[in-house]
Amino acid sequence: MFVWRMHMIKVAILGATAYGSRELIRWLLRHPAGVSFSYLGSRQEGMKVSDVFPVFEGVLDVPYQPHDPDAVPDDTDVVFLTLPHTVPMECVPRLLERGFRVIDFSGDYRLTDRAVYEKHYDHKHTDWGNIEKAVYGMPEFFAEQIAKAELVANPGCYPTSAILAVAPLAKHGLIDPRSIIIDAKSGVSGAGNKAKPDYHFPHCNESVHAYKVGAHRHEPEMAQVLSGIAGEKADILFVPHLIPMDRGILSTAYASLTKEISEEEMRSLVTEFYRSAPFVRVKQGQVMPRTKDTIDTNFCDLGVRVVGRRAVIVSCIDNLAKGAATQAIENMNVMFGFKQTDGLL
Amino acid sequence: MFVWRMHMIKVAILGATAYGSRELIRWLLRHPAGVSFSYLGSRQEGMKVSDVFPVFEGVLDVPYQPHDPDAVPDDTDVVFLTLPHTVPMECVPRLLERGFRVIDFSGDYRLTDRAVYEKHYDHKHTDWGNIEKAVYGMPEFFAEQIAKAELVANPGCYPTSAILAVAPLAKHGLIDPRSIIIDAKSGVSGAGNKAKPDYHFPHCNESVHAYKVGAHRHEPEMAQVLSGIAGEKADILFVPHLIPMDRGILSTAYASLTKEISEEEMRSLVTEFYRSAPFVRVKQGQVMPRTKDTIDTNFCDLGVRVVGRRAVIVSCIDNLAKGAATQAIENMNVMFGFKQTDGLL
Amino acid sequence: MFVWRMHMIKVAILGATAYGSRELIRWLLRHPAGVSFSYLGSRQEGMKVSDVFPVFEGVLDVPYQPHDPDAVPDDTDVVFLTLPHTVPMECVPRLLERGFRVIDFSGDYRLTDRAVYEKHYDHKHTDWGNIEKAVYGMPEFFAEQIAKAELVANPGCYPTSAILAVAPLAKHGLIDPRSIIIDAKSGVSGAGNKAKPDYHFPHCNESVHAYKVGAHRHEPEMAQVLSGIAGEKADILFVPHLIPMDRGILSTAYASLTKEISEEEMRSLVTEFYRSAPFVRVKQGQVMPRTKDTIDTNFCDLGVRVVGRRAVIVSCIDNLAKGAATQAIENMNVMFGFKQTDGLL
Amino acid sequence: MFVWRMHMIKVAILGATAYGSRELIRWLLRHPAGVSFSYLGSRQEGMKVSDVFPVFEGVLDVPYQPHDPDAVPDDTDVVFLTLPHTVPMECVPRLLERGFRVIDFSGDYRLTDRAVYEKHYDHKHTDWGNIEKAVYGMPEFFAEQIAKAELVANPGCYPTSAILAVAPLAKHGLIDPRSIIIDAKSGVSGAGNKAKPDYHFPHCNESVHAYKVGAHRHEPEMAQVLSGIAGEKADILFVPHLIPMDRGILSTAYASLTKEISEEEMRSLVTEFYRSAPFVRVKQGQVMPRTKDTIDTNFCDLGVRVVGRRAVIVSCIDNLAKGAATQAIENMNVMFGFKQTDGLL
Repeated sequence: MFVWRMHMIKVAILGATAYGSRELIRWLLRHPAGVSFSYLGSRQEGMKVSDVFPVFEGVLDVPYQPHDPDAVPDDTDVVFLTLPHTVPMECVPRLLERGFRVIDFSGDYRLTDRAVYEKHYDHKHTDWGNIEKAVYGMPEFFAEQIAKAELVANPGCYPTSAILAVAPLAKHGLIDPRSIIIDAKSGVSGAGNKAKPDYHFPHCNESVHAYKVGAHRHEPEMAQVLSGIAGEKADILFVPHLIPMDRGILSTAYASLTKEISEEEMRSLVTEFYRSAPFVRVKQGQVMPRTKDTIDTNFCDLGVRVVGRRAVIVSCIDNLAKGAATQAIENMNVMFGFKQTDGLL
Repeated sequence: MFVWRMHMIKVAILGATAYGSRELIRWLLRHPAGVSFSYLGSRQEGMKVSDVFPVFEGVLDVPYQPHDPDAVPDDTDVVFLTLPHTVPMECVPRLLERGFRVIDFSGDYRLTDRAVYEKHYDHKHTDWGNIEKAVYGMPEFFAEQIAKAELVANPGCYPTSAILAVAPLAKHGLIDPRSIIIDAKSGVSGAGNKAKPDYHFPHCNESVHAYKVGAHRHEPEMAQVLSGIAGEKADILFVPHLIPMDRGILSTAYASLTKEISEEEMRSLVTEFYRSAPFVRVKQGQVMPRTKDTIDTNFCDLGVRVVGRRAVIVSCIDNLAKGAATQAIENMNVMFGFKQTDGLL
Repeated sequence: MFVWRMHMIKVAILGATAYGSRELIRWLLRHPAGVSFSYLGSRQEGMKVSDVFPVFEGVLDVPYQPHDPDAVPDDTDVVFLTLPHTVPMECVPRLLERGFRVIDFSGDYRLTDRAVYEKHYDHKHTDWGNIEKAVYGMPEFFAEQIAKAELVANPGCYPTSAILAVAPLAKHGLIDPRSIIIDAKSGVSGAGNKAKPDYHFPHCNESVHAYKVGAHRHEPEMAQVLSGIAGEKADILFVPHLIPMDRGILSTAYASLTKEISEEEMRSLVTEFYRSAPFVRVKQGQVMPRTKDTIDTNFCDLGVRVVGRRAVIVSCIDNLAKGAATQAIENMNVMFGFKQTDGLL
Repeated sequence: MFVWRMHMIKVAILGATAYGSRELIRWLLRHPAGVSFSYLGSRQEGMKVSDVFPVFEGVLDVPYQPHDPDAVPDDTDVVFLTLPHTVPMECVPRLLERGFRVIDFSGDYRLTDRAVYEKHYDHKHTDWGNIEKAVYGMPEFFAEQIAKAELVANPGCYPTSAILAVAPLAKHGLIDPRSIIIDAKSGVSGAGNKAKPDYHFPHCNESVHAYKVGAHRHEPEMAQVLSGIAGEKADILFVPHLIPMDRGILSTAYASLTKEISEEEMRSLVTEFYRSAPFVRVKQGQVMPRTKDTIDTNFCDLGVRVVGRRAVIVSCIDNLAKGAATQAIENMNVMFGFKQTDGLL
């Protein structure tokens, strides 16, 4: 009996003050491969990680380094970018040039249609050349490409929940891909860690509202990926709602069936579809998923219903875990030949 | 200057320990007509109202009387029933016979198809003869009939939010009535005041889940009322969700448009539709409603969107107020010739 | 039977965008005397009341007037100031000069020791001359003075809960006034309506912390009033905590007993002390108060315990109601000869 | 570079359906030593662990075994008891006899005065003989004894937070041990996983109340341990409060100083006291701890204040982690010669 452990993988994080990076750090610290941080960059230079995230006091009391992609040490294995949209496109070309493998949390490298990106992110894309290098980091579908990728575009939180819900039906041609509605309910951490009137506790507590109805930037991301899976153009109506809880997304997906299928058959089909996906759990029988059972896990839980001529798929994830940090680590596992579940169970 | 006030109206409540009756009592105490309680019946006989609802200590310290419809005093003007489904059908015939006007919170007299009732409530209806006397208590559409009604079937909370959202479009033939989806999000008080594992705080706090997907008993109620308004059979897919807050329902209604219409035109149309409805507020421009702005009010707030070939209407109410107690008082106002807004602003 | 009602009282509010003024408006609208607003001043000039508080859409859609104390119409009966500390002292002299009666929600006129004020509010007091006109607006103790007051200093939310808890014991000399500890737990609305990092939902939800330990500006206010009641100098250790809920304060008061007294005797004594106070409810037997039973009411609920040689009094109020708006209306009732409970039950 | 890992430690859990055991399982699964479960006993026999805790679906889908201490396999290294009070005393003698080392989460073996136990737990103790074998499982003070213990009495959640707050001052004689007040605020998971009216979401959400004032069974536990540390009888007034959040305890400890000491000196002293305690973090300067920074960690965060002649120590833990499951694992680490922090950072 013997455990010998070394730091096998050197990780840099740029933008290390976002909620997503807090989770990333927390999970990486537990990774069985042994992770060392070669660079923790932030514009909050001078502060310690444990100043911004007191949960890390006594665990990671190191100071942030300046936000400087060029200062990432050469022996770094992987660079995670948890930066605001539009900042990664300034960093990625310099990082790829130096041979780093990059996992980007932003939307900068997720969309393949430049006009769509520039419209939804209201910003000119200055590194479009690297889009073709980017692999969409959803290991359920793109594990092979992720394994070899230089640049992984880690999926958005809403798209993760929506795509995993709809993909099996889209793939099997069971639904009309122009009939898809995603009604999503998200906890408030999805809005980031900056105080704004909409997220002031007495304002958003004990309340629910819809926002960006049919106009959220995650909608084209869902449509693009699901179109690819369906093999025909998917049209998504996406309506996100903010609900008074910290974390978790529940997406209720509605779509018109193209053929008659019993609920049981559909459930079997979805279950079968994800047989080899370690992090998608399909609820059996009449049980429906709850976000709480996925919090602080990399799991996506699905509930399958057929009502009349429509499919209803309910999908639950932790927006900061499977919707961000742990999916990024899952991608890292795939990229570096670790077991896909390493550090994630 | 002179204010002379007397108790103009004598009210009996049977089932006076439900959350709905707490709200009913609270609002009635403030009613400008002056309300006196002639009977507060409950199976929790012997306890005081303020034992069950300590908020009423020093306000209404009277004991409950036994649950006995026959003991309601003759000079009572109106009897509210806040009883569990299937109990009202035992009381209503005896109350109507004695000439009382009755407002029933349950589902016993809302549905006009006996088979549908008996299927969804899993109970044989023993007073079907009185169904034709029952008026659906939604003053926005049935005020004339309510004014004369002996028996008002006060609408369910989910149907209130859903019907008010969809009615204008259904009435104007703007949507395909077989394409309606209602994705509703409700606070936990909607589940009643009995402790159950699903509503145990550490279980349902910080979590969201769907339940009774396409199988909730409020679905046929919505379909029936909207079919009547549309003039053709409406088919509703209703999916309720429980979210971690005390009160409030937000229903997001989706329907396919039958003709091209701009968002602005649709919003004008909805606004116009409710011009004379004192308790429906249509949000203008890009503003979307929040449940919080309707809590402890009789208002229903609507947000109107057109996205591609679909209408999206968001509807917010307080499930215990417009979804139950204050709508009942609004019905009482209409029945007794008070101003519709009396005691409700 | 006849109800004839006129607007008996004309009310001006300066600073009408605070949470406290939202509640004030809401309760005044229901006041049986009939309230009309002669002036609703705010620096958010140009906006409507219902823009800032959408709950008032369709109820009070009037625009704010500029913040200008000199523009308050002459026929105004009472001016409520819901302004940030230090602003009232600029307005009060001009309002009193014109003969208005003023109810001020701020701390500007509560303290009788200038040095204490200037230290705790970190501001030079520029209207100290009017301090002697100010009556501390706690009707349980100062109703006679309030009735005649030109200027009422409406109590702070924490002092309201703490003073009502400790006063009976202090008055009867049952406790050592230098031994008082107030451990208070407040909902987040107490921090105001301005978004700040500490009140960002994902930051303060599901968490509790203490703040301003022994250094909160409400401490000298408690000490001053309780010293007056005790007839000797009271020394208060006040520790406020923020807990994840919208409204409500629970203060747990600890003090050393000066004589032996049974719990039952003490409870009787506290009950007797507040016999004629319509808004203090003393829980009997082993029942303890909960903040929820006081929310949206003007009640203060007290629970009384004797443990060994110490008294423990638990006190619950709604910080925005009895701790601010409804106590102000109670003061208005007393000032204008209405029944003390008018519009408050 | 090589990681070779085997299951070094075989763990049995009796009572494996409590919230505490859910956390225990979750943390043990990640333990670097490699944990295998030799027995997961429960009265909910026949159900799978993942039925009771869906979070473990796909992770630990094994069925519970019957609740039978005699069926624990011989090669088990350690038995955790997460059973209701009074059940462990039936199991412990049989387990110790067979040579197992036991960590008990209940109060059965924490108190050294039989009369106190029997009064507070309202139950005759049937295994008093084994009390002398029990070591109080607080590694900050009793690591040496724990290392050799057959039976560890894992501390209660409230005592953990209170004792860690007060111990440094008690040990140094800085406070009068008869003056200690502990005002604790706990999340609702502390009340267990059984649905009861008091923990019904719409009842306890948005509310706070005190309970068992001066009468909670954790009070004698605190007094006993602190008396031992102080070297003289400590007298504790303990008042717990329930606040609307899932997890976390904040205890505010008040005590009279016996000598003059500056806040800075006291903070240094407390910091020094815990220098070698890996899981106690003393906040420096004016920063105060928040429960949220300790959630899902084994840390206890302390804030130190001196106000006049009193010390105020604020202490934050996760009631299910440091207050139960992770402290138990910390004890296991100490008992089995692992690093104290193994699997806990």
